Amino acid sequence: MCTINEVARDFTAMLRLGDFEAAGEKYWADDVKSVEPVDLTGGIPAVVSGIGATRAKSKSWFGASRIDDLSIDGPFVTGNQFALFLDMVIVSRASGEERPFTEIAIFTVRDAKITEERYFYD
Amino acid sequence: MCTINEVARDFTAMLRLGDFEAAGEKYWADDVKSVEPVDLTGGIPAVVSGIGATRAKSKSWFGASRIDDLSIDGPFVTGNQFALFLDMVIVSRASGEERPFTEIAIFTVRDAKITEERYFYD
Repeated sequence: MCTINEVARDFTAMLRLGDFEAAGEKYWADDVKSVEPVDLTGGIPAVVSGIGATRAKSKSWFGASRIDDLSIDGPFVTGNQFALFLDMVIVSRASGEERPFTEIAIFTVRDAKITEERYFYD
Repeated sequence: MCTINEVARDFTAMLRLGDFEAAGEKYWADDVKSVEPVDLTGGIPAVVSGIGATRAKSKSWFGASRIDDLSIDGPFVTGNQFALFLDMVIVSRASGEERPFTEIAIFTVRDAKITEERYFYD
């Protein structure tokens, strides 16, 4: 089984290539929880539980938006978690509107799978 | 009782003033856990548990080092946790050696007290 360091490095490399949904499919645990500070547009609650709801959240988000100019610091592993600092431009697929965005993301790992992804931003 | 937003704002304001140990004394829970990626110098293990051990860790660290040029992004609150991004210069009190340092810090809050502080860095 992969160590958390291997999971963190491979997952982050996939994000750097823009493979967000594939990275989730590869590493989400069945009972993964995805946590935001507030509810998202599209009827996505701040906390979604389970791989089905997390996949639906991701599809909803990437259906409405895309990410340009992504840069990532990390991964930084501490215990059973790793952290990323992400800087990007979020582009609305409908309007083309561009919004600079930075966030901290914390991933909790158990048995080489991600059991929680939690996002921190203004 | 203070909300997590109030705790996060007050705690972070104290850090910005350089009042690190006072901020800990004000907000550490009795059962606080302090988590680093690796053991620290001075015989401090990566994980210390309880307010006594956490206080001793802090005293050991600030006995050997001081922080200059601190800048903090945050706090960013998500659920029962808040995140900070810290940029600083760590100065050795013994040698005067200066080391630029950045880290992500995640604080877990229960009943207006910090039950875990976890640091992510290279």
